[in-house]
Amino acid sequence: MYTIGIDLGGTNIAAGIVNQENKIICKGTTPTFSHRKNEEIVADMARLSYTLLRRAGLSLANISSVGIAAPGTVLPKEGVVERAENLGFDFFPIVEVLRKDLPIERIYLENDANAAAFAEAICGAARGSAISVMITLGTGLGGGIIINNKIYTGFNGGAGELGHHVIARGGRLCGCGRRGCWETYCSATGLIRSTKEMLARCEKNRQRTAMEERVRHYGRVNARVAFDAMKSGDIYAKRVVDEYKDYLAEGIIDLINIFQPEVISIGGGICNERGHLLSDDLLIKIDRAQFSCNAAKKTVVRLAELGNDAGIIGAALLEKNFEA
Amino acid sequence: MYTIGIDLGGTNIAAGIVNQENKIICKGTTPTFSHRKNEEIVADMARLSYTLLRRAGLSLANISSVGIAAPGTVLPKEGVVERAENLGFDFFPIVEVLRKDLPIERIYLENDANAAAFAEAICGAARGSAISVMITLGTGLGGGIIINNKIYTGFNGGAGELGHHVIARGGRLCGCGRRGCWETYCSATGLIRSTKEMLARCEKNRQRTAMEERVRHYGRVNARVAFDAMKSGDIYAKRVVDEYKDYLAEGIIDLINIFQPEVISIGGGICNERGHLLSDDLLIKIDRAQFSCNAAKKTVVRLAELGNDAGIIGAALLEKNFEA
Repeated sequence: MYTIGIDLGGTNIAAGIVNQENKIICKGTTPTFSHRKNEEIVADMARLSYTLLRRAGLSLANISSVGIAAPGTVLPKEGVVERAENLGFDFFPIVEVLRKDLPIERIYLENDANAAAFAEAICGAARGSAISVMITLGTGLGGGIIINNKIYTGFNGGAGELGHHVIARGGRLCGCGRRGCWETYCSATGLIRSTKEMLARCEKNRQRTAMEERVRHYGRVNARVAFDAMKSGDIYAKRVVDEYKDYLAEGIIDLINIFQPEVISIGGGICNERGHLLSDDLLIKIDRAQFSCNAAKKTVVRLAELGNDAGIIGAALLEKNFEA
Repeated sequence: MYTIGIDLGGTNIAAGIVNQENKIICKGTTPTFSHRKNEEIVADMARLSYTLLRRAGLSLANISSVGIAAPGTVLPKEGVVERAENLGFDFFPIVEVLRKDLPIERIYLENDANAAAFAEAICGAARGSAISVMITLGTGLGGGIIINNKIYTGFNGGAGELGHHVIARGGRLCGCGRRGCWETYCSATGLIRSTKEMLARCEKNRQRTAMEERVRHYGRVNARVAFDAMKSGDIYAKRVVDEYKDYLAEGIIDLINIFQPEVISIGGGICNERGHLLSDDLLIKIDRAQFSCNAAKKTVVRLAELGNDAGIIGAALLEKNFEA
């Protein structure tokens, strides 16, 4: 038997067929066109699933369950997306609607960051650990918590908003309305904001920085500009990256003190920087500054392993989360 | 059958015999004299237990289990206090040592904040909730996390250090070595620090404040000074209390965003301020500023109910935590 995992994003719908070894045997994407009616988006989720089945030479009879990883606040038990602003979902019964086009009894739903964390826990950076936390450094800072091999969602499905703990009281204004949330510093958006601030400062002080050339190269300020320029020895870029990593360490230490997970894995585009992100100095700082720094067993911090496939795989594995 | 709960503190050892309705039928205390040998402290824990048994007209045969709530980092499975600085415990096998004087097979150990949270979850402010968080505003800021009716301790026993998440980066120096930990603002010690800072400012600016009279009354600056003076209309005291409550709200919202527990209960001496602490404006702020502020089901924040007995009761109930 196989399962289908559908990772519903604001830009693309990605889906894959996953085998019993947790490997994707066939995958594809289709644009979300998020301003459409909710039902049209779901119709394309079903269409993509049938396309993949055809390509893999399989039929619905070979599929034991389908999982959906959706952004926003979801109610897994009800199969409802409570709220996903970038898709215009508001208490949308996505499971019920999908089942009309894709007649499968077992259709599961989870938040996308939770699904990715589950995938990493089952067959990625945290495999073998009963307790792990994953953070995803993307447009936002997403979090997923795995406790005793299950996704932890709190009593109402909304837990794990790890990016929305205040780390710098009175600091940057966050989309959630508060100031100083971790997300405003450590998401890709936060890094871009810091890069722009430094570029503005350099311009004002007439200081030349290699970041300018990178901006011209990419045609815009993105999350790579500061890392690129730092690697070429630019001191202003280094300051941006160092501060970014300081905030990252601070939030990771918070999570260790709160959860003491066996593994914290870090995903999202910024992880492509690999050793430049999780550098030795960062890991040493995390190791020394945590509350139980002398504990015999300590949390391991490492990069996520499944990359962009984490959402698909996590969605496809959801039956393992919801079944005993 | 009954159980014995022993709450081992830096100043006193408190113990009680608890019946099957989770009520203390008999309790007592004895000084810890924390600078003694570890074994002598434990001998007094046993002695106090026998005293209580005698007073209740019971014998060891009536006791199904004994629970110990200890400060610091504990290893519940091993029955070892990994580290409790104020008691001079360093990998001390407290369960094994106690069993020599108190020959009971089932002796359980937990961190004191965890035990208190468990008591509140079973028969206090969070009874009936499978997921709850308790914070204790004392000398430090302790935390206990209950998930699916069990104490959550992470993979190494050290989880729940909720006071050690940084809320004001670069802020007050914390005993843990970091700056800006929640504990440095919201423990009783933090409130005293804020009160002293405001008193110094008032003195420097030759501003009279009712806090001075309260300091003379108590003979020192304690956690009541600012609340007392605020109630008499003092604006400087109000500023101290308002800021204290702002930090408190900030950290509580963080915990809601991370855990979405059904209940967050607040214990510790400062809770004697009751409505002055958990005032309507504080609760409204928490309600509006949380990430899932539009969720159908939301966390309830309320005062703890068991007061100083939470440690004893929680310790006495530990068999419910460790048995299936």
